[in-house]
Amino acid sequence: MAEHITSRQENYSQWYNDLVVKAGLAENSAVRGCMVIKPYGYAIWEKMQHQLDKMFKQTGHENAYFPLFIPKSFLSREAEHVEGFAKECAVVTHHRLMANPNGSGVVVDPSAKLEEELVVRPTSETIIWNTYKNWISSYRDLPILVNQWANVVRWEMRTRLFLRTAEFLWQEGHTAHATKAEAIAETEKMVGVYADFARNYMAMPVIVGHKTESERFAGALDTLCIEAMMQDGRALQAGTSHFLGQNFAKAFDVKYQSKEGALEYVWATSWGVSTRLMGALIMAHGDDNGLVLPPNLAPIQVVMVPIFNKQEQLEQVLEKMKDIKTALEKLGISVKIDDRENVRSGFKFAEWELKGVPVRLAIGPRDLENHTVEVARRDTLTKESMSLDTIVDNVAALLEEIEKNIYNKALAYRDSHLYRIDTWEDFKQQIDKGGFLLCHWDGTPETEAKIQEETKATIRCIPMDTCVCEEEGKCVYSGKPSTRRVVFAKAY
Amino acid sequence: MAEHITSRQENYSQWYNDLVVKAGLAENSAVRGCMVIKPYGYAIWEKMQHQLDKMFKQTGHENAYFPLFIPKSFLSREAEHVEGFAKECAVVTHHRLMANPNGSGVVVDPSAKLEEELVVRPTSETIIWNTYKNWISSYRDLPILVNQWANVVRWEMRTRLFLRTAEFLWQEGHTAHATKAEAIAETEKMVGVYADFARNYMAMPVIVGHKTESERFAGALDTLCIEAMMQDGRALQAGTSHFLGQNFAKAFDVKYQSKEGALEYVWATSWGVSTRLMGALIMAHGDDNGLVLPPNLAPIQVVMVPIFNKQEQLEQVLEKMKDIKTALEKLGISVKIDDRENVRSGFKFAEWELKGVPVRLAIGPRDLENHTVEVARRDTLTKESMSLDTIVDNVAALLEEIEKNIYNKALAYRDSHLYRIDTWEDFKQQIDKGGFLLCHWDGTPETEAKIQEETKATIRCIPMDTCVCEEEGKCVYSGKPSTRRVVFAKAY
Repeated sequence: MAEHITSRQENYSQWYNDLVVKAGLAENSAVRGCMVIKPYGYAIWEKMQHQLDKMFKQTGHENAYFPLFIPKSFLSREAEHVEGFAKECAVVTHHRLMANPNGSGVVVDPSAKLEEELVVRPTSETIIWNTYKNWISSYRDLPILVNQWANVVRWEMRTRLFLRTAEFLWQEGHTAHATKAEAIAETEKMVGVYADFARNYMAMPVIVGHKTESERFAGALDTLCIEAMMQDGRALQAGTSHFLGQNFAKAFDVKYQSKEGALEYVWATSWGVSTRLMGALIMAHGDDNGLVLPPNLAPIQVVMVPIFNKQEQLEQVLEKMKDIKTALEKLGISVKIDDRENVRSGFKFAEWELKGVPVRLAIGPRDLENHTVEVARRDTLTKESMSLDTIVDNVAALLEEIEKNIYNKALAYRDSHLYRIDTWEDFKQQIDKGGFLLCHWDGTPETEAKIQEETKATIRCIPMDTCVCEEEGKCVYSGKPSTRRVVFAKAY
Repeated sequence: MAEHITSRQENYSQWYNDLVVKAGLAENSAVRGCMVIKPYGYAIWEKMQHQLDKMFKQTGHENAYFPLFIPKSFLSREAEHVEGFAKECAVVTHHRLMANPNGSGVVVDPSAKLEEELVVRPTSETIIWNTYKNWISSYRDLPILVNQWANVVRWEMRTRLFLRTAEFLWQEGHTAHATKAEAIAETEKMVGVYADFARNYMAMPVIVGHKTESERFAGALDTLCIEAMMQDGRALQAGTSHFLGQNFAKAFDVKYQSKEGALEYVWATSWGVSTRLMGALIMAHGDDNGLVLPPNLAPIQVVMVPIFNKQEQLEQVLEKMKDIKTALEKLGISVKIDDRENVRSGFKFAEWELKGVPVRLAIGPRDLENHTVEVARRDTLTKESMSLDTIVDNVAALLEEIEKNIYNKALAYRDSHLYRIDTWEDFKQQIDKGGFLLCHWDGTPETEAKIQEETKATIRCIPMDTCVCEEEGKCVYSGKPSTRRVVFAKAY
């Protein structure tokens, strides 16, 4: 048997950790809060990167790279930004080590103290807007549509693999525009790209909406987000897109000359997703046997396991498998033949289940005789026998079906855990059971804060999909009038 | 006219800087020694990455990601490594900033001092071998063939864009093997991949060889490298592959149980190339008009510039251009139509020359009448008129020819600056004029050091291509007997 995994029922949090570690996705490193992303985990992240990068380029963006370090003083330039990001961060104070004069090893060289400390970027608005100052002088220089793939560091006290780590990988888009309308359109476009990616590649339904003022990015005028529901009913923020107004342009004095000759401050957006998406992917679809990967992001989409007693049988089966592999690869499907001879097939089955490979084909001598192949689906854990003649087309169709089925399953779960709650008693009762609570809210940060204090629930977003939530009502906490419902939940 | 570029003749070093900045590849940032890689520069780097990544995967490697930070004590674990890398590096000492109690801005929070300082990775052998310790217990766990794409920091005092920066981007392969022979084979295989990449994608001839003991990577038993010649006759080390023996396995206590049941230390290699390759690419091929990009790495392979007086002409020309673009893109060729209307075509020609686009097509109303197109080659700066009927096939063939021609030109330059030098007088005279000096050397670090002291020349490598250099002779400096020539040069 493969490694034991704690069941979701028994301990959801331990189940998550078991999956991450035992499926070979990531592990903790010797450095507090920093993870090692293992090859299988990184291969999934690469598939995410590849698809997102394609979508960014299709929407007119280019990649660039900005420094890892930010001068400490830059963080103070934007008043709200400093509150949000100039706190728990890695501070570089020296640039040299030297042999320890009083013993072994190396120590910091006190003579190599930096004049101004550098902060390892927690996000790059400040260093990028300081750069854009030199790139922008006229309306002809706009828009700037740039994205960066990078590592960032936020010194978190409590960390969890993928979900909250001191160092994580992400992309951050930073765009500059001549008009407010254009910047807002960009903010909306990019949250749309994220929603598209979540739904059609991660097979994960999301609610798109605005953050409340208190949940906004530090320095933004508006933050749009996508919120997904995990299998314990908690929310996970999977991507954000910020309309930054002219805040960073003012902080770094970035102006452009308009067509009419006037000097105007530039409008900004920023948007990002991170390796946190790996956590979302695992928790949205995994089951008690391991990962369940949507075919669109699975590094291995089809695994083939030969069944045999004698060497001669193995060779016959492998020959057939290689033909199928070649044919599947021509359709762009990634295939692995697990021909290890020192491992039993039951062990292989469990291992590839743990790793979430969408389709498993098993062929033995009897299959060859009958001209059949055993096809197992990871999402439903069902098996059926198919003809070898049509296996290639059938597998291609099956992968599409699995992608849809995984999405539909997650959608059904999410929708059955959406509650319209109208009284404070019901709210308190439901919130501990999990799920998204659609409630009226009076729009004040005070009420929002009190609800959080009493229940740990936050407003995940004010949904943009108006038809669902726009209606008259009374705030679930204060009883004051409200014109729309918002989404409350406990969140990762 | 486009921006003025200093000629190579006038000032080679300034010419290089002009190209980097004016072609929009990179610029210095507000952080000392850290560069901003601009979109056009990053697009070239992405093409390099994409091709190298493919070659690594074809040779069985997988990507992973390890922490940015290394505990200070790790650097001291391998005796030679600490000498090489525990010096000029960025040291993180604190994990929090706080509001300045005595004024504005933020200051380091003295209460947030780390127990052990962290170093921003200058290279990752130590953190990776500390991780491999947990991954390896049996011969079945070997080999581990892992690569990482990452940023690293080495606090350089004098920096130059791409060639020597405090932060740079690179890939570092780290492999673990059961036997010495297998590790040596891997070291050789990967320097071979680098040579293949340099020659067939960068169109840059390289000499493959061993570093002398004093030029080896800190902690390696052998360092293989590829050395290229720039147009000023200086050498540029473009990639290295290290056989690390069991040094890191011993430092981090990484043993495996062999098939026979014995406990053995694991054998290691590491290998890397960095954004320094961008500097090599620029300096190997650029001319006084700007970059000359080999088609295999050019983000834009073909640019089309419409020639027109009236709007109606522009539309007719653009229609034709779009047909050609579609046909070229079907062949996998990247094409840009420069349809800007506020810029004259002469300006466009100069700009795309500066940016090194291999082929430029210009079409005007008279061309449409004559059914022709003007084809300009960036490598030779020649123009000819071709028929519109066969333009797609001709451009495809031309791109291949340009790739070859750029290589051959660089090879001819390199070979005409290779000198077999046998006396110390000749050595001193030639070394200041540049070029690679093939000389006998007595094999001692003392002679090597003295030659460097007197001339600033170093031994770039002991070539692996035995037929060129293996012969009896006398050391150019000491007159002692030698069995082979080595390559001396001044280097970047």
